[in-house]
Amino acid sequence: MTLQQIRESNIFSNITTTIIIVYAVILGFKTSAEIESAFSNWWYYLDLVITLYFLFEIALKLSADKMEFFKDSWNIFDFIIVVATLLPIEESEFAMIARLLRLFRVLRVFNARPELKNIIDMLIGAIPSIVDIVILMFIIFYIYGTIGSFLFGSLESGLWDNLLISMLTLFRVLTFEDWTDVMYEAMELNPWYWLYFVSFIIIAAFVFFNLFVAVIIGEMEKLRETGLECEISEENRRLNEIEHELKEIKQLLKESLKENKRE
Amino acid sequence: MTLQQIRESNIFSNITTTIIIVYAVILGFKTSAEIESAFSNWWYYLDLVITLYFLFEIALKLSADKMEFFKDSWNIFDFIIVVATLLPIEESEFAMIARLLRLFRVLRVFNARPELKNIIDMLIGAIPSIVDIVILMFIIFYIYGTIGSFLFGSLESGLWDNLLISMLTLFRVLTFEDWTDVMYEAMELNPWYWLYFVSFIIIAAFVFFNLFVAVIIGEMEKLRETGLECEISEENRRLNEIEHELKEIKQLLKESLKENKRE
Amino acid sequence: MTLQQIRESNIFSNITTTIIIVYAVILGFKTSAEIESAFSNWWYYLDLVITLYFLFEIALKLSADKMEFFKDSWNIFDFIIVVATLLPIEESEFAMIARLLRLFRVLRVFNARPELKNIIDMLIGAIPSIVDIVILMFIIFYIYGTIGSFLFGSLESGLWDNLLISMLTLFRVLTFEDWTDVMYEAMELNPWYWLYFVSFIIIAAFVFFNLFVAVIIGEMEKLRETGLECEISEENRRLNEIEHELKEIKQLLKESLKENKRE
Amino acid sequence: MTLQQIRESNIFSNITTTIIIVYAVILGFKTSAEIESAFSNWWYYLDLVITLYFLFEIALKLSADKMEFFKDSWNIFDFIIVVATLLPIEESEFAMIARLLRLFRVLRVFNARPELKNIIDMLIGAIPSIVDIVILMFIIFYIYGTIGSFLFGSLESGLWDNLLISMLTLFRVLTFEDWTDVMYEAMELNPWYWLYFVSFIIIAAFVFFNLFVAVIIGEMEKLRETGLECEISEENRRLNEIEHELKEIKQLLKESLKENKRE
Repeated sequence: MTLQQIRESNIFSNITTTIIIVYAVILGFKTSAEIESAFSNWWYYLDLVITLYFLFEIALKLSADKMEFFKDSWNIFDFIIVVATLLPIEESEFAMIARLLRLFRVLRVFNARPELKNIIDMLIGAIPSIVDIVILMFIIFYIYGTIGSFLFGSLESGLWDNLLISMLTLFRVLTFEDWTDVMYEAMELNPWYWLYFVSFIIIAAFVFFNLFVAVIIGEMEKLRETGLECEISEENRRLNEIEHELKEIKQLLKESLKENKRE
Repeated sequence: MTLQQIRESNIFSNITTTIIIVYAVILGFKTSAEIESAFSNWWYYLDLVITLYFLFEIALKLSADKMEFFKDSWNIFDFIIVVATLLPIEESEFAMIARLLRLFRVLRVFNARPELKNIIDMLIGAIPSIVDIVILMFIIFYIYGTIGSFLFGSLESGLWDNLLISMLTLFRVLTFEDWTDVMYEAMELNPWYWLYFVSFIIIAAFVFFNLFVAVIIGEMEKLRETGLECEISEENRRLNEIEHELKEIKQLLKESLKENKRE
Repeated sequence: MTLQQIRESNIFSNITTTIIIVYAVILGFKTSAEIESAFSNWWYYLDLVITLYFLFEIALKLSADKMEFFKDSWNIFDFIIVVATLLPIEESEFAMIARLLRLFRVLRVFNARPELKNIIDMLIGAIPSIVDIVILMFIIFYIYGTIGSFLFGSLESGLWDNLLISMLTLFRVLTFEDWTDVMYEAMELNPWYWLYFVSFIIIAAFVFFNLFVAVIIGEMEKLRETGLECEISEENRRLNEIEHELKEIKQLLKESLKENKRE
Repeated sequence: MTLQQIRESNIFSNITTTIIIVYAVILGFKTSAEIESAFSNWWYYLDLVITLYFLFEIALKLSADKMEFFKDSWNIFDFIIVVATLLPIEESEFAMIARLLRLFRVLRVFNARPELKNIIDMLIGAIPSIVDIVILMFIIFYIYGTIGSFLFGSLESGLWDNLLISMLTLFRVLTFEDWTDVMYEAMELNPWYWLYFVSFIIIAAFVFFNLFVAVIIGEMEKLRETGLECEISEENRRLNEIEHELKEIKQLLKESLKENKRE
């Protein structure tokens, strides 16, 4: 059994997945402080074992694929996570970063399960089609945020103190989270200020709804172009051939007629 | 009228549906304590009658279908519910389980109305196409949950005490339920912690939205393959025949030309 | 200008629409008590004028259409509203009903604007395709409601007192309205009761989401069947004719060959 | 390099975009009062520079396009914003309007980025297809609002004081914002008043859901008409030609047969 065969075997990938899940459960229990102190020794060794296994696995993959390994961005991502958690920064001032990196180890499950990798790739592929929607939403937030901090900046709740906080408050209004509390407070300044909130909700929701429809239609258009189009172009190719055939037949007939006349 | 005919008759199925509805209404009233004590005797006998009817019905179906009966998983489900409610566990320590089983009797309406059975089958059929979405959502919850319990574990509200409670709090944030209360509490530790909540909402909602679109498109693709495909294959069959016909005609023409020349 | 011409003229329909809008605005101001008392005389006469105009209009339509008038259910609806508001029940014990009937006069705008009539007809047409979804949702509410009133019936808030109130509370949970308050209260009985709420939200939302997709796909299927199908069946008809034509040509050719041979 | 070339150059458009973004950031900081007072001199000059640049840019565009400039409504919009902010109304009673106009300068980014212009045009194009939905929603709000102010007008919270406030409260109920607080207050008058709220939510949500589906289907229909139709009309054109060809062939054959017989 060569290195390459071991690297591609399902069993190997399944072990990695299992270890990641076990690791995730351990990390989960670690958040419960009592359990952590009671079993801290155990966890030290388990962490060591998992770190060694990850190191062994990535070393094996590297020796199997050689430089090919670094051509897949998922592999690079894997490699960085495994190497970075080796650094001895546990109890130092970077402890938080070390903990986060350990957490990101769970993301290695993406490289072990291709279905998840596909979903992530698809989501990244959808980003360009929504970037303009994001810009538009930002402009709406920006304008309403600036107006909001001019109009309601003096309110005691401090929800409109500056542009950033105003935009956070507007995000809260967009999620309908206690937005009437915000509105009723503003309406004490002027009873017509409900127009500001209702118009924001309608505009932002209208934009969202319609652009969502546009994205759906856009995705469908791409799909149809590849799916149905090739069927219909196949039909057109055939009709073309039939026309060509008919023209040949006409030619033959005309020849036959000429022959007959010549006789 | 044979057993089989009685078993398949609509009248029989309608009686069962009616009895289930009556039974559901009774169970409903039983939750109102006063009414229960006032009519407890009546209900005892009514319950007995319904239990006997269900027993009679399932016995009839069994004797009509013989062992065929157990090949449909809906029938097995029916059978278990009817038999389990016969056990004399009413006032014992399993009273709660007995009550729940009685409640599930209402689910027998599925076996009586095929339209509902179809919807349930469709929903079960949709599970495989969303299982990866569920895994992805779980990873997002897991990572944010762990970060959350590290960052906010010291807060007094106890909403981030351990990973499980943190994930429950995140589910609450996803439903937009008073999520700003949770955020404002966390922002007292660091005014930039709003990034944690806003990024979670945007990522989780973005994932949900886009994957929902992907599922819709996937379902439509399946549909089109079955629907339109058979029409187009009909066209292709026709085009095939036309091409065949044309070849025959050309052959005939060529023969006719040869004949003419030979003359 | 005959009765029929007046009845069908756009001008007449526009006057009715305008009067309905004026009437709606008046009714709106009437809800503000101060304004009502200040102008009560004016409104008495305005109401009289509008009642007389509606009476005149419906009489004109009736004399133009004769018995045809009652064949359109929208006309019957119109007629009932106009006649019912004539009854002298203003200050009697049926005052509320009289007021409601007056309010429903605004609905006469449907008969004046056909676009709105179409939307309503479309919505009514969509009811059959969602009736099973409604039944399913009801079963989910029923089962969770019964379990809820068994488990949480003893809570002080009174949100689970009987089945009806439990189902109202569940509807509140479905709209995500302060559902965590309900959950946290229940979790004081048993910390694992969050499973009841989270499972309800996931199941109800999953059902809703998927069935919504199913309805969209169902509507599209209908559309495609009427739209694309007729195009493709037109193509199939043509291909049929071409095949027929080709068979005739083959026949002619065979005859011609036979002729030639006979010579 | 002519005026026209400068006007169309990408570099020029990019400078404008950058300046608008810088300007937006400045306006953002201005909402934070402390920062504004500390740097007020700087901002006075920066504002002057930007105003001059915008003036220069619009003058250049005007001299390049001449009267063509005013044929694009986006240019007119641009022109009004630039000119209006020149008016010396800074510290006068129109200060608020001047500030708003300055804010709208950010909207000039639309004219600099055509993608955003397209989204806005698309959204404006979608308005006619939802205008009837808006009317219908208004009627629902109107009727429920009037009933609400009749029934609950006496409540202390003042949420149903007159029609306008009632409709605002209903909008709040539609966004599920603490709607149970409103309902529980009303249910103190009559425990069956939950029917009013639940029916409103179901009707309004049902209307919204279904009409949203209708709009999606409508948009798709338009799309298919333009996309698929041209493919199918290509097929039809081909079928037409084939039929024409076949008729010619039959004619030729008939002639050939006649020739043969005549011989």
